[in-house]
Amino acid sequence: MAEVPNLEVPVLGPCRFDSPMLEGGPWPTMDEPRRVLLHSSIEENLATGRPLEELPAFEGAGPRGRLYFDPAATRAGIVTCGGLCPGLNDVIRGLVMVLWYRYGVRHIEGYRFGYEGLNPAIGHEPMALNPEVVGFIHEQGGTLLGSSRGPQDPDVVVDFLRSRGVNVLFAIGGDGTLRGAADITAVARHRGLELAVIGVPKTIDNDIPYVEQSFGFDTAVTRAVESVRTVHIEALGARGGVGLVKLMGRHSGFIAAYATLASNHANYALIPEVDFPLEGENGLLEHVRRRVLKRGHAVIVAAEGAGQRYVPAEGTDRSGNPLLGDIGTFLRDRIQAYLREKEVAHTVRYIDPSYLIRGVPATAFDSVYCFRLAALAVHAAMAGRTGMVVGRWRGRYVHIPIERAASGRQQVDPHGDFWLSVLEATGQPRWAVSSAAGSG
Amino acid sequence: MAEVPNLEVPVLGPCRFDSPMLEGGPWPTMDEPRRVLLHSSIEENLATGRPLEELPAFEGAGPRGRLYFDPAATRAGIVTCGGLCPGLNDVIRGLVMVLWYRYGVRHIEGYRFGYEGLNPAIGHEPMALNPEVVGFIHEQGGTLLGSSRGPQDPDVVVDFLRSRGVNVLFAIGGDGTLRGAADITAVARHRGLELAVIGVPKTIDNDIPYVEQSFGFDTAVTRAVESVRTVHIEALGARGGVGLVKLMGRHSGFIAAYATLASNHANYALIPEVDFPLEGENGLLEHVRRRVLKRGHAVIVAAEGAGQRYVPAEGTDRSGNPLLGDIGTFLRDRIQAYLREKEVAHTVRYIDPSYLIRGVPATAFDSVYCFRLAALAVHAAMAGRTGMVVGRWRGRYVHIPIERAASGRQQVDPHGDFWLSVLEATGQPRWAVSSAAGSG
Amino acid sequence: MAEVPNLEVPVLGPCRFDSPMLEGGPWPTMDEPRRVLLHSSIEENLATGRPLEELPAFEGAGPRGRLYFDPAATRAGIVTCGGLCPGLNDVIRGLVMVLWYRYGVRHIEGYRFGYEGLNPAIGHEPMALNPEVVGFIHEQGGTLLGSSRGPQDPDVVVDFLRSRGVNVLFAIGGDGTLRGAADITAVARHRGLELAVIGVPKTIDNDIPYVEQSFGFDTAVTRAVESVRTVHIEALGARGGVGLVKLMGRHSGFIAAYATLASNHANYALIPEVDFPLEGENGLLEHVRRRVLKRGHAVIVAAEGAGQRYVPAEGTDRSGNPLLGDIGTFLRDRIQAYLREKEVAHTVRYIDPSYLIRGVPATAFDSVYCFRLAALAVHAAMAGRTGMVVGRWRGRYVHIPIERAASGRQQVDPHGDFWLSVLEATGQPRWAVSSAAGSG
Amino acid sequence: MAEVPNLEVPVLGPCRFDSPMLEGGPWPTMDEPRRVLLHSSIEENLATGRPLEELPAFEGAGPRGRLYFDPAATRAGIVTCGGLCPGLNDVIRGLVMVLWYRYGVRHIEGYRFGYEGLNPAIGHEPMALNPEVVGFIHEQGGTLLGSSRGPQDPDVVVDFLRSRGVNVLFAIGGDGTLRGAADITAVARHRGLELAVIGVPKTIDNDIPYVEQSFGFDTAVTRAVESVRTVHIEALGARGGVGLVKLMGRHSGFIAAYATLASNHANYALIPEVDFPLEGENGLLEHVRRRVLKRGHAVIVAAEGAGQRYVPAEGTDRSGNPLLGDIGTFLRDRIQAYLREKEVAHTVRYIDPSYLIRGVPATAFDSVYCFRLAALAVHAAMAGRTGMVVGRWRGRYVHIPIERAASGRQQVDPHGDFWLSVLEATGQPRWAVSSAAGSG
Repeated sequence: MAEVPNLEVPVLGPCRFDSPMLEGGPWPTMDEPRRVLLHSSIEENLATGRPLEELPAFEGAGPRGRLYFDPAATRAGIVTCGGLCPGLNDVIRGLVMVLWYRYGVRHIEGYRFGYEGLNPAIGHEPMALNPEVVGFIHEQGGTLLGSSRGPQDPDVVVDFLRSRGVNVLFAIGGDGTLRGAADITAVARHRGLELAVIGVPKTIDNDIPYVEQSFGFDTAVTRAVESVRTVHIEALGARGGVGLVKLMGRHSGFIAAYATLASNHANYALIPEVDFPLEGENGLLEHVRRRVLKRGHAVIVAAEGAGQRYVPAEGTDRSGNPLLGDIGTFLRDRIQAYLREKEVAHTVRYIDPSYLIRGVPATAFDSVYCFRLAALAVHAAMAGRTGMVVGRWRGRYVHIPIERAASGRQQVDPHGDFWLSVLEATGQPRWAVSSAAGSG
Repeated sequence: MAEVPNLEVPVLGPCRFDSPMLEGGPWPTMDEPRRVLLHSSIEENLATGRPLEELPAFEGAGPRGRLYFDPAATRAGIVTCGGLCPGLNDVIRGLVMVLWYRYGVRHIEGYRFGYEGLNPAIGHEPMALNPEVVGFIHEQGGTLLGSSRGPQDPDVVVDFLRSRGVNVLFAIGGDGTLRGAADITAVARHRGLELAVIGVPKTIDNDIPYVEQSFGFDTAVTRAVESVRTVHIEALGARGGVGLVKLMGRHSGFIAAYATLASNHANYALIPEVDFPLEGENGLLEHVRRRVLKRGHAVIVAAEGAGQRYVPAEGTDRSGNPLLGDIGTFLRDRIQAYLREKEVAHTVRYIDPSYLIRGVPATAFDSVYCFRLAALAVHAAMAGRTGMVVGRWRGRYVHIPIERAASGRQQVDPHGDFWLSVLEATGQPRWAVSSAAGSG
Repeated sequence: MAEVPNLEVPVLGPCRFDSPMLEGGPWPTMDEPRRVLLHSSIEENLATGRPLEELPAFEGAGPRGRLYFDPAATRAGIVTCGGLCPGLNDVIRGLVMVLWYRYGVRHIEGYRFGYEGLNPAIGHEPMALNPEVVGFIHEQGGTLLGSSRGPQDPDVVVDFLRSRGVNVLFAIGGDGTLRGAADITAVARHRGLELAVIGVPKTIDNDIPYVEQSFGFDTAVTRAVESVRTVHIEALGARGGVGLVKLMGRHSGFIAAYATLASNHANYALIPEVDFPLEGENGLLEHVRRRVLKRGHAVIVAAEGAGQRYVPAEGTDRSGNPLLGDIGTFLRDRIQAYLREKEVAHTVRYIDPSYLIRGVPATAFDSVYCFRLAALAVHAAMAGRTGMVVGRWRGRYVHIPIERAASGRQQVDPHGDFWLSVLEATGQPRWAVSSAAGSG
Repeated sequence: MAEVPNLEVPVLGPCRFDSPMLEGGPWPTMDEPRRVLLHSSIEENLATGRPLEELPAFEGAGPRGRLYFDPAATRAGIVTCGGLCPGLNDVIRGLVMVLWYRYGVRHIEGYRFGYEGLNPAIGHEPMALNPEVVGFIHEQGGTLLGSSRGPQDPDVVVDFLRSRGVNVLFAIGGDGTLRGAADITAVARHRGLELAVIGVPKTIDNDIPYVEQSFGFDTAVTRAVESVRTVHIEALGARGGVGLVKLMGRHSGFIAAYATLASNHANYALIPEVDFPLEGENGLLEHVRRRVLKRGHAVIVAAEGAGQRYVPAEGTDRSGNPLLGDIGTFLRDRIQAYLREKEVAHTVRYIDPSYLIRGVPATAFDSVYCFRLAALAVHAAMAGRTGMVVGRWRGRYVHIPIERAASGRQQVDPHGDFWLSVLEATGQPRWAVSSAAGSG
């Protein structure tokens, strides 16, 4: 992030309409939005070499007094893509509620099963959305609309949206989804269409850049902690008990690291950003052996993307993500073999709770967060922003260019104070930083 | 159960001591215990051909006014064996509390890591137990004492207990543990020792005969339901979503059946007691295909012991239980292959939550149940009963000869009203009864 | 219960229809139902002086092969009355599911806001019920139909049911509701109408006679335990901390007693069935003072109906129940005053969680139980039973004459082994049995 | 906050010791801490009129390579004050763990029952703390050390700390506690003592200035949501159901506002910062009446400090906080009376869950947060900082002068985007800003 980023988001045109006068009189607006600094310290800002008024900053989010779209003529569409993530229904509900009550938009439709629902050739019928339909959906996990992986032809999508008269599209999904939304934005712009495309970044792994914490992450950690706690109890209940939990995190170890800190029972946190030796005096196996002999048990939390050099895999999934080798069963088997070989009494318990984590309702924290992201996504669209995502940065809600959010990756900084806390909590060795780190 | 069972439990000898006068004045006692009928209907009782006063019945449990052991001279030991089960710490705590406060027993010791702790050659030191040590343990899962599988030589165990002056042993475990306790009882009786051996039957699968519902079962079902609910959400969130959960239940499908009823979201419950065809028009695969096409998704709950003829395994585990084939991954792979072959869009999500279920704290129901079992185990021991387990039968607490509880197996009755309710809840086909059923 | 009870339930007439052949081939039936013994011990049965085949017994519940009503012509109505209770939606859902899928009944309606919904003069429109409407309601607390207290004129109700062509009515509620259902049954019988009235007894207090454990009770205890646990933590966190929780239980202390046993943290359980002195050496106040001085804290769980002689109240609520004085705030104030007077440093924390307990979703245990009660209620109705409730007795599901369930009251037996366990768990003084007890 | 704040924290002196070489080799350190900007937008920073390098900023927190105290000679003390707050035990545990394992400090003591434990005249014996004692305490609510309200003479406290050789004191508590800690710092400085006093700000209401979100707040909201959800179910279950929940928040309505957003079921959120009329066309009563008639029910969430002009109170509690009138029972009674007078059928359910919220274990979010605050408090102390608190500001951990944190108050900004979201979620009227607001 050395060069100065361009952090402005596209605008469809000047705002021509007043915010509507709905029930309860005029709604408050934020007409003097702030530019929220990218960097939060004096040192980082000095390093840009720029004067204060030109420091890199995001546009602050919020409702505007003047709108680009006429609410009465607005037709909105919503799509959810990729794997399940807690809070999807909260976002859908928030979008519908704010469109309906705050702006009086009466045509809102949801597309079924991800971008598939925007390709008429596949034939999923859109679902009409209104406050009654979405009233209680946030109390269930999953997504009312269904989801799928993979893109559809952006020209087909734009044609479809035109055919339905939709001028505002909300796309909730991960980096692939956001790249798809960027493509749709580009096609619409190229054709000169009045289409606002707003993304709500979804990543249970918390790995989207410029998004401090993604929705669903808090819920995922909350559930992951239960797994760590339970495997710890299993480890305590057996001679030489070793508990091993594999948690989500393909490229970023946030869930594993947070669950480690939150449970306070793990002795080793393994993440993609930090390499670890398996063999030798300083290797994981020997560390585990020594700990089991000394303390009677050990608990290991591994992100699914950790230690991939031990379990090389080939190919990609339907979203185009490289397949991962299974570090969980690999470590389980290697630890068992090592302790057997060293004649240490042991019982290894392995848990992979991933599908128990993604489909649950959101925590209170995530519910609040989802509602606010949804509300601000609607405000941005009504004010004519496009090709952007909403996010929270340094505690404030901002507009982020969609290309920024869809490129690169947020990772645990192996030199930062957060990872340091994990080391302090586990007392694990200071292993080297992984070559997988730092690409963020 | 055609022949008339002998349901009396051994007694060490006549009661010679008064119940102690501890803080709070005399404790109530139940000196006229009832004989609790084995059979609860007129028809079953008539079928025995016996007169009313000779109907098969268990001795009712409860504190007696006169004791066999002098509380002041009593030394008690506690051991927990086998896999973790919610409520183990509640039972330990209950035993200690009632021994301490109700009878004034001041020497209570816990043996580490199952029967291993009763074999001095292995060298685990017993742990001194008192109300302070056990005060909060019931709020954590697992067992304070640790556990292990497999028996130890009963002669060694009896020697060890003698060497420590212990005259009351509480053994908490499954059928293997209870057989071990029966062996210890036999050795002690043969040597003419004053040793009371009381079992508290532990089986998360709920498969111990004459024990209506085992402790930990309610907790296991409660947690299992979360898995069914979550996999249902996963199934709803994808085109052709199929959710599959494997639950505990080697020989008895109670957890799977209860979780099915409690979640109300499963379409197929597969249990060891009921066979199911895989192929053909009436086979599971074709049923799933049709349901996915008609309703968009399907949810399957399978006990680990279901469909074993499809996944034959060989060998036994350390407790001597035959190994099971993995019906979960088998079904996952077969369903995927079938739907792919039939060109049905699908996404199969598979969850195996077992180690997330065993190590959790007990539900309120199980906590109450464990305390009561523990209290009644203490009362039975103090009154000189031995070679027995405590249990609840037809809503009343009773003494059960340990051989009865350790032999045979309780199973879901495929012709009974409970399984009928499962069929009504799922609407699944009425497949044939398994050859594995009926051996109870 | 000294005299021999008449435990048979009314039957509308001989069964004339076959169980329907719906999807999946013939459903299993139980055509030789058992008579389930009222008394479970040999001694109690001997005391009746009756021969084995004439012992008092309930008719076993279950689906019959032959039906009284033609499913295709059956119209069913459902009403929920009285205060909220966990599981109401499970029962509604179960009734609808079994009526719809098992019997093919296609006309099912729900009445809004209790018996009010059966009085057309009030004007609540019935709600059409089907599997889609009730699909997820069991995951929420409360009742889909709404509820209210108090009866309506049974002649008006019967007229209304006739006007809608309804021949099966399910009434879910407490003793008042069941008395109302008995009145409706009587009017229908008097007029010679083919109306089956089946009650599903609802009492969060667990105080309905011949119903071992009522639905919602397990959930209520589960939530109550959280209150006891939290107030215990408050008590531990302050000098002379006294935690006091008031729990539901107007006449029966089951919730208080179970929550005491389940939490294992209460030192005094106060229930309507057992009187307690307030003043004097053996009074509650002095006991609390001594405990606070000796152990630093104390926890008290009081049923709302406990100690009513200290807080006399007058009048009745809308259901006709006598109003209770507020024992919770009374004890809080008296304990504070006493400790202040005795110059004991203290902090008293008082919690009354009742409205936090009634509106929550059912536990797994209660969900299973509700489904089974609902299914058996449908079976009973289809087989022409009327004027009865379904219940579980000694672990088996039975038909109970509605007058039996609606009269008298189940209470904690102060001389039984359950209350004894509570005394063992708390170590509280053996205070005298209340004059309020024993009326069951 | 118009004037430029002085945000530097006191330092005892130059760092003279190296960070210790403990197990696992050198621990990472952050020797070039950043100055974290007070203001996060360009506009706010421009308004200060200062150049970039002189913008108001906090010292970034983190472990330093060089220490002021010799770890081997350090003796640390910990005290918790005021009402219970989720996470207290997490903070205690984190302090002990990091002192012990990271710095090798072996003398750590906890003072019982707040500042009382630092006054030897009261006679509470300090409790020795080490990793074993605190190992599992975070899984329980409350505080291991106990707590109390009110200060002690700072001279007495400093004498006591000297007598015990303690040179690092960690004080966990609210504004009163922090003022006490500031007084202790001042006395120590005046006497020239080497005593580091570090505060960890505790406020379940989230009302401490310069502390973005206080620990325990997330847990409190999580639990508060359950109350809102349950009272909503109660409101739905009755004709004219009105649910009313009173939540914590004396001067700041954060808990009420967050719980409103998170539950998505409240129709009116009442907070101290925003006044509301009771009577008249635009008054709360009339709004509730209209909503009940139109939608059948209404849910109100009120912070305890809301609407105090309707319930004036006099006097202060032991911490010196002004007593509040009971807005909860006041609103309950007024709404009931109004609806009765207007002849609207109604049922009002009121819940005050406060003591059910404070004593629970921390959420995963709060557990992580508490550990990090604790670790950074230890780092600050070892590096010789004093008279400060640790906090998170704009997503980064910082050192805050204790006087800043102990003065003024953080409140909901009635003109900010957060409160705007609440209005959007509830659709409630835009009532005027309270005179109680804006004093932050």
